[in-house]
Amino acid sequence: MENIRIKMEAHLDDLTKPRGSLGKLESYCIKMAEIQGKVPPRVEKKGVYVFASDHGIATEGVSLYPQEVTRQMVLNILSGGAGINALAGGTGWEIIMVDAGVIGEEFPPDLEVKPGCTFVRARVGNGCRNSFKEDALTPEETEKALAQGKVLAQDAADRGLNIIAIGDLGISNTSTAAAMLVAAGFNIDDMVDRGTGIDKTMLEHKRHIIQESVKLRNSPKNGKAILQKLGSFDFAMMAGLILGLEGKGIACVIDGFPVTSAAYMAYMINPKVSDWLFAGHLSKVVGHKPVLDRMGLDPIVNLDMRLGEGTGAVIGGHIIELGVRAAREMASFSQAHVSGGETKEEKY
Amino acid sequence: MENIRIKMEAHLDDLTKPRGSLGKLESYCIKMAEIQGKVPPRVEKKGVYVFASDHGIATEGVSLYPQEVTRQMVLNILSGGAGINALAGGTGWEIIMVDAGVIGEEFPPDLEVKPGCTFVRARVGNGCRNSFKEDALTPEETEKALAQGKVLAQDAADRGLNIIAIGDLGISNTSTAAAMLVAAGFNIDDMVDRGTGIDKTMLEHKRHIIQESVKLRNSPKNGKAILQKLGSFDFAMMAGLILGLEGKGIACVIDGFPVTSAAYMAYMINPKVSDWLFAGHLSKVVGHKPVLDRMGLDPIVNLDMRLGEGTGAVIGGHIIELGVRAAREMASFSQAHVSGGETKEEKY
Repeated sequence: MENIRIKMEAHLDDLTKPRGSLGKLESYCIKMAEIQGKVPPRVEKKGVYVFASDHGIATEGVSLYPQEVTRQMVLNILSGGAGINALAGGTGWEIIMVDAGVIGEEFPPDLEVKPGCTFVRARVGNGCRNSFKEDALTPEETEKALAQGKVLAQDAADRGLNIIAIGDLGISNTSTAAAMLVAAGFNIDDMVDRGTGIDKTMLEHKRHIIQESVKLRNSPKNGKAILQKLGSFDFAMMAGLILGLEGKGIACVIDGFPVTSAAYMAYMINPKVSDWLFAGHLSKVVGHKPVLDRMGLDPIVNLDMRLGEGTGAVIGGHIIELGVRAAREMASFSQAHVSGGETKEEKY
Repeated sequence: MENIRIKMEAHLDDLTKPRGSLGKLESYCIKMAEIQGKVPPRVEKKGVYVFASDHGIATEGVSLYPQEVTRQMVLNILSGGAGINALAGGTGWEIIMVDAGVIGEEFPPDLEVKPGCTFVRARVGNGCRNSFKEDALTPEETEKALAQGKVLAQDAADRGLNIIAIGDLGISNTSTAAAMLVAAGFNIDDMVDRGTGIDKTMLEHKRHIIQESVKLRNSPKNGKAILQKLGSFDFAMMAGLILGLEGKGIACVIDGFPVTSAAYMAYMINPKVSDWLFAGHLSKVVGHKPVLDRMGLDPIVNLDMRLGEGTGAVIGGHIIELGVRAAREMASFSQAHVSGGETKEEKY
């Protein structure tokens, strides 16, 4: 590892630019080199895994949108009309849409899927249970979701992806995320905010439901138990995917607050995951930053976004790719006959 | 204008996402709509104008690199090996490399130029004069450079560009930039920093040269006079380009500290220019932020870059394009049969 870093820094310092002048792009390259064990690293194929699932806690009235929106948005993505389609299309990511457990029937077999998009049927169940009333998942469902996540990590390797992004979709996912993180020890005041939509009464209700769920489920402070008692199918599957990337040489860009909560559960299970994680963006959701900080992840962009679906992750991931591209394509001082390669720094 | 903004907001609010959830991408779309007078706006063709020129002040020993590097880097860009080639290639911008006055002979006529790159011969002179000793440009050279910039604004329109970026290249351009901005009223302590390369002695020398040049030239506080007495061929040409975009419906993304200093001169001549300017990134150079703030420009990314050549501008510009793409390609609530279009905000 140390060796790869030194080699990568030497490679970057020989390129025709003042030393360090690509700033964070150079740090991203170094991390990519360490993940891939290659100098320079490469980004040839990118895929964003968008997980959809329903959350039992939605029945407690913590969201303004009806639960049927989860299914409608899956269909919208498959037909190319969602935010992630536009942003993934504009940055060259293929979309892998995963049904981890959307409420209602199995999606029809003859579903029309736009080019650039794949649909993965991986339903663990018909929406998870309401954690305000009972454990959200059974231990068996938790294992199944984690295992399915690992299958997807292998799927990423089989597709030849060098970098993946993770996005999510599901009514009330921020409530589930906040509950998991409070159970993990974060302060509820840092995890739940008014946002810009719900009013004070609804906020207090949401906060109450989250706090009571955490108290009632009384989960031990470990990632797997929290996923089982307070989590959801999609979050357990994302955690399984992140854990499953170990040793595969694939980088993973996480999106906003919900995906980050799942990443944090993976981090509790195996703190090494932060070695292959990047934070694509800083979301406008208040709880996002403290969780990223705890994992030592510095968000790549900060655009006040809070759409989900992986939209922030693909933007940040594209900037990583640009750094890698510069490292691979730029001429060295000797190749380009440019003077001053020996000079340490400063704008030329 | 007001009408365009209202129409654009209504368009964005009808897309299948919680209202406002694309954050700053939505603001960029609104500004693009206002610039183009179109709802939704479009980005079909993008070009980055990279200006190269030499600065007489370099002979005072304010930079670590020899002046010959300016010419070498022009050739590096034309042969595809510089940072801007990698980043423009990865974001779909064509490069228009402009020789505004590089020291030495005219570039040879049989110059090999890589695809995706155009070379524009627009030399105002053989490097500008040393502003520590005399006026950097004559009044005639200033007019010629400004006029040539306006020719390039028409060139951008002729090429069918919807958005341009401006980058720069030239040994000692940060010293020239700082001198112009100090003459414009900015505090020298906010404009000159140690950077990470030059030592304390060299910094004090650079600061002294800048301060004395400003004092000796004693320029009236207007953009054109400052460009003439303390500026350079490239900065005057950039200012001309920015001013020349008025009424052309073309957005312009500026890069780091030197380009921003030229933009500020244009802003002093016509404060309306900020209506069509975007700040692509926040550079690591200390003087960048106060100047952007004065023009009311909020940098799109902050990646600690300080390479120049337009590298930060094309990254920021690509994010504007992604916002426009989302606005054009996303389905509306009714098209996608998604419930909740009437709901104000909140994560679904």
